[in-house]
Amino acid sequence: MTYEVKSLNEECGLFGIWGHPQAAQVTYFGLHSLQHRGQEGAGILSNDHKKLLRHRDTGLVSDVFKNPADLEKLQGQAAIGHVRYATAGEASIDNIQPFCFNFYDMQLGLAHNGNLTNSRRLKKELERDGAIFSSSSDTEILAHLIRRSHNPRFMGKVKEALSTVKGGFAYLLMLEDKMIAALDPNGFRPLSIGKMANGAIVVASETCAFEVVGAEWVRDVKPGEVVVIDDSGITYDSYTDDTQLAICSMEYVYFARPDSIIHGVNVHTARKNMGRRLAQEFKHEADIVVGVPNSSLSAAMGFAEESGLPNEMGLVKNQYTQRTFIQPTRELREQGVRMKLSAVSGVVKGKRVVMVDDSIVRGTTSRRIVQLLREAGAKEVHVAIGSPELKYPCFYGIDIQTRRELISANHDVEEVRQIIGADSLTYLSLAGLIESVGLETDAPNGGLCVAYFDGNYPTPLYDYEKRYLKSLEEKTSFIID
Amino acid sequence: MTYEVKSLNEECGLFGIWGHPQAAQVTYFGLHSLQHRGQEGAGILSNDHKKLLRHRDTGLVSDVFKNPADLEKLQGQAAIGHVRYATAGEASIDNIQPFCFNFYDMQLGLAHNGNLTNSRRLKKELERDGAIFSSSSDTEILAHLIRRSHNPRFMGKVKEALSTVKGGFAYLLMLEDKMIAALDPNGFRPLSIGKMANGAIVVASETCAFEVVGAEWVRDVKPGEVVVIDDSGITYDSYTDDTQLAICSMEYVYFARPDSIIHGVNVHTARKNMGRRLAQEFKHEADIVVGVPNSSLSAAMGFAEESGLPNEMGLVKNQYTQRTFIQPTRELREQGVRMKLSAVSGVVKGKRVVMVDDSIVRGTTSRRIVQLLREAGAKEVHVAIGSPELKYPCFYGIDIQTRRELISANHDVEEVRQIIGADSLTYLSLAGLIESVGLETDAPNGGLCVAYFDGNYPTPLYDYEKRYLKSLEEKTSFIID
Amino acid sequence: MTYEVKSLNEECGLFGIWGHPQAAQVTYFGLHSLQHRGQEGAGILSNDHKKLLRHRDTGLVSDVFKNPADLEKLQGQAAIGHVRYATAGEASIDNIQPFCFNFYDMQLGLAHNGNLTNSRRLKKELERDGAIFSSSSDTEILAHLIRRSHNPRFMGKVKEALSTVKGGFAYLLMLEDKMIAALDPNGFRPLSIGKMANGAIVVASETCAFEVVGAEWVRDVKPGEVVVIDDSGITYDSYTDDTQLAICSMEYVYFARPDSIIHGVNVHTARKNMGRRLAQEFKHEADIVVGVPNSSLSAAMGFAEESGLPNEMGLVKNQYTQRTFIQPTRELREQGVRMKLSAVSGVVKGKRVVMVDDSIVRGTTSRRIVQLLREAGAKEVHVAIGSPELKYPCFYGIDIQTRRELISANHDVEEVRQIIGADSLTYLSLAGLIESVGLETDAPNGGLCVAYFDGNYPTPLYDYEKRYLKSLEEKTSFIID
Amino acid sequence: MTYEVKSLNEECGLFGIWGHPQAAQVTYFGLHSLQHRGQEGAGILSNDHKKLLRHRDTGLVSDVFKNPADLEKLQGQAAIGHVRYATAGEASIDNIQPFCFNFYDMQLGLAHNGNLTNSRRLKKELERDGAIFSSSSDTEILAHLIRRSHNPRFMGKVKEALSTVKGGFAYLLMLEDKMIAALDPNGFRPLSIGKMANGAIVVASETCAFEVVGAEWVRDVKPGEVVVIDDSGITYDSYTDDTQLAICSMEYVYFARPDSIIHGVNVHTARKNMGRRLAQEFKHEADIVVGVPNSSLSAAMGFAEESGLPNEMGLVKNQYTQRTFIQPTRELREQGVRMKLSAVSGVVKGKRVVMVDDSIVRGTTSRRIVQLLREAGAKEVHVAIGSPELKYPCFYGIDIQTRRELISANHDVEEVRQIIGADSLTYLSLAGLIESVGLETDAPNGGLCVAYFDGNYPTPLYDYEKRYLKSLEEKTSFIID
Repeated sequence: MTYEVKSLNEECGLFGIWGHPQAAQVTYFGLHSLQHRGQEGAGILSNDHKKLLRHRDTGLVSDVFKNPADLEKLQGQAAIGHVRYATAGEASIDNIQPFCFNFYDMQLGLAHNGNLTNSRRLKKELERDGAIFSSSSDTEILAHLIRRSHNPRFMGKVKEALSTVKGGFAYLLMLEDKMIAALDPNGFRPLSIGKMANGAIVVASETCAFEVVGAEWVRDVKPGEVVVIDDSGITYDSYTDDTQLAICSMEYVYFARPDSIIHGVNVHTARKNMGRRLAQEFKHEADIVVGVPNSSLSAAMGFAEESGLPNEMGLVKNQYTQRTFIQPTRELREQGVRMKLSAVSGVVKGKRVVMVDDSIVRGTTSRRIVQLLREAGAKEVHVAIGSPELKYPCFYGIDIQTRRELISANHDVEEVRQIIGADSLTYLSLAGLIESVGLETDAPNGGLCVAYFDGNYPTPLYDYEKRYLKSLEEKTSFIID
Repeated sequence: MTYEVKSLNEECGLFGIWGHPQAAQVTYFGLHSLQHRGQEGAGILSNDHKKLLRHRDTGLVSDVFKNPADLEKLQGQAAIGHVRYATAGEASIDNIQPFCFNFYDMQLGLAHNGNLTNSRRLKKELERDGAIFSSSSDTEILAHLIRRSHNPRFMGKVKEALSTVKGGFAYLLMLEDKMIAALDPNGFRPLSIGKMANGAIVVASETCAFEVVGAEWVRDVKPGEVVVIDDSGITYDSYTDDTQLAICSMEYVYFARPDSIIHGVNVHTARKNMGRRLAQEFKHEADIVVGVPNSSLSAAMGFAEESGLPNEMGLVKNQYTQRTFIQPTRELREQGVRMKLSAVSGVVKGKRVVMVDDSIVRGTTSRRIVQLLREAGAKEVHVAIGSPELKYPCFYGIDIQTRRELISANHDVEEVRQIIGADSLTYLSLAGLIESVGLETDAPNGGLCVAYFDGNYPTPLYDYEKRYLKSLEEKTSFIID
Repeated sequence: MTYEVKSLNEECGLFGIWGHPQAAQVTYFGLHSLQHRGQEGAGILSNDHKKLLRHRDTGLVSDVFKNPADLEKLQGQAAIGHVRYATAGEASIDNIQPFCFNFYDMQLGLAHNGNLTNSRRLKKELERDGAIFSSSSDTEILAHLIRRSHNPRFMGKVKEALSTVKGGFAYLLMLEDKMIAALDPNGFRPLSIGKMANGAIVVASETCAFEVVGAEWVRDVKPGEVVVIDDSGITYDSYTDDTQLAICSMEYVYFARPDSIIHGVNVHTARKNMGRRLAQEFKHEADIVVGVPNSSLSAAMGFAEESGLPNEMGLVKNQYTQRTFIQPTRELREQGVRMKLSAVSGVVKGKRVVMVDDSIVRGTTSRRIVQLLREAGAKEVHVAIGSPELKYPCFYGIDIQTRRELISANHDVEEVRQIIGADSLTYLSLAGLIESVGLETDAPNGGLCVAYFDGNYPTPLYDYEKRYLKSLEEKTSFIID
Repeated sequence: MTYEVKSLNEECGLFGIWGHPQAAQVTYFGLHSLQHRGQEGAGILSNDHKKLLRHRDTGLVSDVFKNPADLEKLQGQAAIGHVRYATAGEASIDNIQPFCFNFYDMQLGLAHNGNLTNSRRLKKELERDGAIFSSSSDTEILAHLIRRSHNPRFMGKVKEALSTVKGGFAYLLMLEDKMIAALDPNGFRPLSIGKMANGAIVVASETCAFEVVGAEWVRDVKPGEVVVIDDSGITYDSYTDDTQLAICSMEYVYFARPDSIIHGVNVHTARKNMGRRLAQEFKHEADIVVGVPNSSLSAAMGFAEESGLPNEMGLVKNQYTQRTFIQPTRELREQGVRMKLSAVSGVVKGKRVVMVDDSIVRGTTSRRIVQLLREAGAKEVHVAIGSPELKYPCFYGIDIQTRRELISANHDVEEVRQIIGADSLTYLSLAGLIESVGLETDAPNGGLCVAYFDGNYPTPLYDYEKRYLKSLEEKTSFIID
């Protein structure tokens, strides 16, 4: 049963710190606040100025560090940490980051958020030349490129390696004497720098981590930048000038925590704007607004305010679902046994409901929620989505790499409406989305990557080119089981 | 650090089922939806028509039944289950319910939600007479009373025992050939009966469990009732006529899930009404409404609608906090490291905020949240509480048995305002609370127990009488650390 | 596959200590040395002079106390501990000892080794009178009898209770101000008293525990004694004069550790004597002696010395077998995959082997070992058993309560020899056994209980009488699968 | 407290199988029988003809595969497995074998027993050339050498790599279409080939694994051989002619299981011979022989037979010590609390005891056992050791790489006798050891490596040369705490 699990998955969260006596502990709390970016595994690597120490495992941050001794042994004034989302079947500990490379002349810690588009060809070239990879992840490639670079200076090797990899990437590197943060030339993934009261420098995928560890935001890492943090402070440099902001729009729509600020825009505010704009574009009569918890509550607030309709808690999520190992059998599901989401009949009975959600991937979840609302007595269910139709895969770090699983790549709006059983279905327009975020930039699409909506990728696709072109010709019918 | 943990704790949740081939599985899902009523332990006892089978342990339902085999072995067409809240230090498995008593002539399963007020004296009398208790919980007492009754018929024994125990109680009993549900004469705790499509009868502390297992509500158990469920159906009986509804008002204010319906009133709607009424009673100027997640979101909705102020997500809760074993040290907390709750500066900066919460127990939490909002830039913080001042302990099943821990038992409103650092502090009036719930009944206080607010207990206090009277003379100063 | 598991199981081991600042820790080490007496569960109950504290669980002592905190929390200067053997399906934590009873006027800790013969009728009588038992074990009965006694003094109640229970029992009781040890009138089970250098008094099922905790043996508890240990020292008393030593002979043959001394006789020495005597009674030609590890190594030593044949390591036991969760499938077993025991072909090839074992229960194990030796090349396999034929069940604490599982209750020596496939089969004579142990006593059978060999039980059988008499008429054929 | 832990540690055990439908299961049982060769970690890698599957973790084989699903998922007709001993602090899962390397054109599984003497310089050279190692173990080097070889054929690459590494090694490699076994030119470590009844080929560090899985011995792998096992059978080849047998003599003395046969000699028989010869070389009067369990029981048998003294069980080992997480504190140890080994006073009291042990490393264990025997009443304790004085480190796979920890490298026999507190101390002569094993070979030292005794290493020491020469000049005084 997949309806409770959102089919969109971010591939990671990063946190780094330099200059704090309890670096690993702070990293633990930072990672904990980034847990929504990856729940399959976590790790922390600390730097005690003599060697790199590491603990990592599968599971939530709190599981990985269940035993306090595992955190205490990570001594040192600097640390990097990582939370990982892994596709099923590869949840091996070998792929859990940070990676730690031990050489006769140095140690290197490495963590990565994003997806490379030329990893397959780089890996093949490197292996032909004798390289051995210890994991199946893309991340190791950067270490091999650095070690094989003939540039005489270490930062020169790093820049050369960063220029060779393509796609979406935010990297954190830990060396004995410095921490390095780097971002791809389009800034697909968010990465911010902050400062704690005691002078420690922190780096995180989202600013919500700064709130949690008591740090102040300094500035976001820019596309193409490589930032060196050491005992002398922060040094901003870049490995390329050929940059253009294209931050992943789904960070605003769905992934990021509402309290994070990305490139100056608060995520909750952006979502509320999406809800407002969606209310303007919505053309139907209704009685109440119901947001799908938890990701769509901001958009529902905006929709309700703009439309003047009451915002109601018509759907309730069980807050204890994260750890449930036992699922209802098919037989029990047919008898109506379900977990995680309930419709509140006292609220929706006899009402024309606007059900606000952030996005539709496969349509299965939407269909079930519409059904829940109808069973609870809703007279009409109008589905309003806070983003445009998802039609194209992402190759920069979101776990959708095929059009086959996207209902809107295979069906038009009216077909989707029928499949999910709604009385009406309204998507936010692409222009509405871009204006709702409202980044201050001259870059195309208001500085957003919107390739999943319009198919215009800001970069060449390298390894994925052929597969992508072929996929454009295929259609999958979403027959409902 | 206690500020994230609400100091109010319900003592249990009950679920029972009769006539379903997968009784234990359905009970698992029912308990899962009642998890908010107790997180310290859980158990299920099934009835395979020959003997009672049981599995119980400390932890969340999902932990207790992590191993599917533990659930599968609970064969049978009937089951009862229990989630337990335990005070610290007594989290022994011995106290985890359902209890299972094995006699040479019968087996008896027993689960209990509530608190007896004459348990100490009953226990002493029974022990003097040679009885041995295997747990430190009240629950066993009923079994001893039943076994020692000289009434010739089993139901006569049960009724005699129910008439002997005093206080707040909802019981579920499992025998080889029937399941029995019983409620105290004031109906302090909620208990409802439902029916599944396949004819199985279910009983649950809250109707949210019916939504989850696909059952339809039949009716609530009435004060003083004893309900027998067996293969011939449901038989309603009562062990006393001296009844008067006094359902715990905190169920509506804080404990129950918003999608539950208690005595005909949806909890979310009651909370929204409290918010509306609170807005009417509120006398200050403000810019935005911010509810404290998750329990006060309904009240904040009502407040916003009534006041016309925008409802904003100014506080964000980390949804992964349940299982965190590692807490920030004092040193890290002083540096600003905190978990669980963050204020959204992009939302509250420069604003006059109405912070809506459901209740104040010790004041510590409120003080920290006010501080969070101020640090995030709020210009003013007006605290609005959706219930009256908590001044008196509860002896019927809520874990507050001393006035010392209640800030409002020791300080007046202005003092509390100063302690929590708010610009203003408004409590909902008692009349406002009663009207917001709006039960259809002629009972005093609109059928609610409001003793924690006004000190008028609907029953004698028995064991607690002396301690209570003494406590009225004491005052504790809430000096802030 | 049952062949590696000896079908004889002791039901418990006891350890108690009074007057040591680290009482629970010492008890841990004491129980660890008694682990061979029960592997299904363990527990320790300590006495911190205000209340009794306890930790217990299923598993080995080292598993139950895997987390050092569980041991550290057991504060106090006195403690009792228990290791338990449980029959399959009843490995519930409810039955793991010590039990802890909490009364309004006292606390009582209780641990038991042995088996009562009138527990069923006592339990029924007590329940008819309103008693509730929380476990399915016999042990609780004593607590009920003590609490219901009308004797005005506590020790009077204890003596009355001890006079009421029948069968085999060694009890340890812990009260706030004293520890009590008691033994049944026949002394079926061993129980010894020792003293540590710092004055602490210890009690243990076997003296091997004294070696481990550095205590000196003081004396063994006598049949019918009740021993009180408190801050003033040791007080010996008795609850009956009708006593006669009949210590379980299987303690010497199989259960006890070779380094233990029971009633003045070292177990290893007794076994070596059995081996010597067996060699005298053995009538065949052979080349080498091979003991079945580990329990028969002493007897093999004695056999070899007496016979003049070389003692060889012809069978090797894998020392890591305790924790193996995965067993060979039937298919793999048929291909010869086996664990735990291997025959050493380099030693036995071409030899006429005397395989010395302590006893034969079902015969399955013996048959497999004979087969192993033959497959390894043994020319002849002569089985020599260090005890007489096991023909009758035990009702005093060994887990054989039916004649159906005893091959010698159903077949004569020649039939057994054929079933196990040996070239010859020799049992030690009953007189030989009694002389090998050689207790200094005038009691019948040299102070040993030999009922499993000759059917003469030293006491009435109460609850078991009927079942036993009926079993004498039945025969089971040990058809070999 | 180190006295129970033998300070000699083998570094690994290997098991491989080709052509069995339940290859991983058989490997599990094989590894289980090799558990004595490494207890820190274990892993199995299977080959399902499409890809290599693996599960590994820290702990005993039975812990690593506690969950049957972990074994079941290892599908395929071939598998290799490894048990690992790891020095403290490096018990990381990264170092647990088998390793699994994934290339774009092939997969490679690799397991290793032994120690390379030129690994440091090889690793440095490879890293200078851009190689990245994922573990801190030597084992990966072979994979890098294979991948970087320019030999056009795969077996050519393997042979080139085997010729480049130096020291002691037994390797198992798994490819999609074959399994490869290889041994160093001196055959320092044992490695044997066997065959199951169903035709499956097995390879194991010791033949005891063949007994357990029901395989028949085919032959031992010879020094310098590389053996290819695939669907067509076994192909023997060699990568060098410059070979000379120098099998580790400590395999016979201590490491190997008594039921194993190495190069035609049964280990128990070799040990018994050592005991016999030791008795001849022993010059003192005594009453009884007591072997230190478990490793010295064979030698004690031989000593007793040759000397005519009775072999007694004067020391008893607790068989449940493997998993004890809690150790006596210093304070408790001083009070005499000890685990694992007890002296049997009933046996040794008043006796002149010959205590037979296999070897002395630091002397701490011997000193404690002598003390135990004296406390139990032994009149004299004569220590007889079944091997010569251990004076020099091993660089081929035993965990002694410094002379500092060897008491005999720092003290002569009389000094050692005084330190351990014995009445006399006798070591077996080197000639006696060589003759006791009695391999049929013309190689020096009877085909044994005896460098730990005489300092004559059969190969150059490469990386260790300097450190070794320097160590010859140092002395450590074994001051007793």
